[in-house]
Amino acid sequence: MKFNNRNVYISPKAKIGYNVKIGDNTIIYDNVIIGDNTIICNDCVLGEPLNEYYHNDKYHNPVLEIGANSLIRSHCIFYAGSKIGDGLTTGHHVTVRENTIAGINCQFGTNCDIQGSCRLGNYVKMQSSVIVGQGSLIGNYVFLYPYVVLTNDPTPPSNTLAGVSIDDFSVITTGTIVLPDTQIGKHSLVAANSAVSGHFTDDSFIAGNPARCVSKLSKTPFFDWETHKRHYPWPKNFKRGMPWNEIGFDKWNK
Amino acid sequence: MKFNNRNVYISPKAKIGYNVKIGDNTIIYDNVIIGDNTIICNDCVLGEPLNEYYHNDKYHNPVLEIGANSLIRSHCIFYAGSKIGDGLTTGHHVTVRENTIAGINCQFGTNCDIQGSCRLGNYVKMQSSVIVGQGSLIGNYVFLYPYVVLTNDPTPPSNTLAGVSIDDFSVITTGTIVLPDTQIGKHSLVAANSAVSGHFTDDSFIAGNPARCVSKLSKTPFFDWETHKRHYPWPKNFKRGMPWNEIGFDKWNK
Amino acid sequence: MKFNNRNVYISPKAKIGYNVKIGDNTIIYDNVIIGDNTIICNDCVLGEPLNEYYHNDKYHNPVLEIGANSLIRSHCIFYAGSKIGDGLTTGHHVTVRENTIAGINCQFGTNCDIQGSCRLGNYVKMQSSVIVGQGSLIGNYVFLYPYVVLTNDPTPPSNTLAGVSIDDFSVITTGTIVLPDTQIGKHSLVAANSAVSGHFTDDSFIAGNPARCVSKLSKTPFFDWETHKRHYPWPKNFKRGMPWNEIGFDKWNK
Repeated sequence: MKFNNRNVYISPKAKIGYNVKIGDNTIIYDNVIIGDNTIICNDCVLGEPLNEYYHNDKYHNPVLEIGANSLIRSHCIFYAGSKIGDGLTTGHHVTVRENTIAGINCQFGTNCDIQGSCRLGNYVKMQSSVIVGQGSLIGNYVFLYPYVVLTNDPTPPSNTLAGVSIDDFSVITTGTIVLPDTQIGKHSLVAANSAVSGHFTDDSFIAGNPARCVSKLSKTPFFDWETHKRHYPWPKNFKRGMPWNEIGFDKWNK
Repeated sequence: MKFNNRNVYISPKAKIGYNVKIGDNTIIYDNVIIGDNTIICNDCVLGEPLNEYYHNDKYHNPVLEIGANSLIRSHCIFYAGSKIGDGLTTGHHVTVRENTIAGINCQFGTNCDIQGSCRLGNYVKMQSSVIVGQGSLIGNYVFLYPYVVLTNDPTPPSNTLAGVSIDDFSVITTGTIVLPDTQIGKHSLVAANSAVSGHFTDDSFIAGNPARCVSKLSKTPFFDWETHKRHYPWPKNFKRGMPWNEIGFDKWNK
Repeated sequence: MKFNNRNVYISPKAKIGYNVKIGDNTIIYDNVIIGDNTIICNDCVLGEPLNEYYHNDKYHNPVLEIGANSLIRSHCIFYAGSKIGDGLTTGHHVTVRENTIAGINCQFGTNCDIQGSCRLGNYVKMQSSVIVGQGSLIGNYVFLYPYVVLTNDPTPPSNTLAGVSIDDFSVITTGTIVLPDTQIGKHSLVAANSAVSGHFTDDSFIAGNPARCVSKLSKTPFFDWETHKRHYPWPKNFKRGMPWNEIGFDKWNK
């Protein structure tokens, strides 16, 4: 049904893995490397050249590497000069700029805008319409919900950028703005529609505008709707698609 | 000018109505049914296969039904397995996932992201960049303004979803986050940039973060800018494109 | 690498300047005028016809004029009937509707949605995902950060629109909603995640929900992270891409 090779362009300088499928109208430019069994859907552009391309006759497209067993849905753009680990899943209309380095099993939801020059760990799960500003540092097993923005401009408009960092297992919920230079420790939760600034230790529950640490997350009475047990730290109660799926978090964590 | 049939692909298993126009580079997969006089613009994908397609050789694409007299603008994606009534109008870059059931005369603005497994009534009008989470129930004559999010995850990340419901004639304004399991009654209004949680009766004016019912909407002094009359309940004062356009709401409502 | 003229359609009634480059799968309809040295990337639609096209056999596509030395990135849609000055730069997935009049050296970030019937001055810099409602008036050297919305509907849903105005050198930061009929004077700053309503004089620092003028911006202690000098009025400290880049703002301003 799909993958009829209609109007597909693949540069002779791209390296396409075994059993890769490429959708109609998709274009893959020089020096793109795609891992085995990856699926690229329709109307995508991979290896989009950097600005320099338009001004420099001797431009050489940097390598874009997309790992194996990934699924990139339609109408996405990935610039040259990024490296994304195996097992990426994207929604539609995603933009990923240059110098994005991401680990394995990440998810970039529909309309996400990854602005480049950022580092993402493994299992970073972004829902729809997340904006990741340049200079962001995201750990492992981090969840970002719709319309979260990781900003970087301390005195808009600035000459300098001050990216944010979000450490392992933390969850930023819908509509939250993480202000420049903010640092959020491990196993923290930010409530919806917050504006967060400052440095927060591990296990913080953060809420408000301006947001503050309301309580230790593990001591805050958030209960799972099914089991009625304390939900946080969430890895003890959520395992779908996680590496502790089989054995549980506590055993895996050792 | 448009509709030159350039690089269009239509599955032989699709059923295209009378006088349907299809824009360049658009692809229509198996088992899509399009009603008469509908216009599909450029660069769209209709009947996008579900995840199972990538893993199951015997996959059968579920039916996507789009009603008559609709206008789907460019760069939209509709998955297989949804049913949308007559008179749909979309903006650009809209994504509609599977199991979306919508009534007649709906509007999905530019960049809307309808995540599927949701029910929408008739005349649901979404402006740009609305996100409708799975499990949402939206009544008839509901307006959703830009950057409204209907969420569904009570303890992020959760194993269970708890969708929201918004009843007939209610209006959710710009940037509001409707938190999981929220129920908003008929003829209510939510102020811009609210974060709404809980159950609200009919005729509520809801505002704040966290939002509360501030007053009965019909008793709240919101006046039309032209007529200086009380504006709510809005159907008495707004009729453009509504079924009471000719005879007025009171007569129509009987 | 790019610009191989694959699946490009250009109306014989379009006027394409000297040294213009057009990406694959892009379509340019009647009466589009593109200035010299402009680059249009892949999968764009320029001169998209207005609604009337679908109903009027004698429809004539109004002129869309895009200035010289512009860069329009992939998957953008520009409607017929707008005029954009020289030096435009866009991100991806941008939508610009009819009757948008913009000056020189503007920037429309990825996923921006310019809804038409609006006026933008010179050097208006929108980051990603800004929504500009109909009736908006934006001055010169204005910065709009991600998820800013310029609204226009005073009593949703309204029969009348009341656009906002933002005067020269003002900066609206991330996630702010500018409510209908709001007027923001020159050299003002709106804090992130505000909901702004009312009329504000020049040099206001505006914050909150509902937002108020907290202080005179030039008297507010915001310091540049590198120089530790007062940052506002920002043109004294930020010159990248600005016409005062060489000589400094004070000299240029005379």
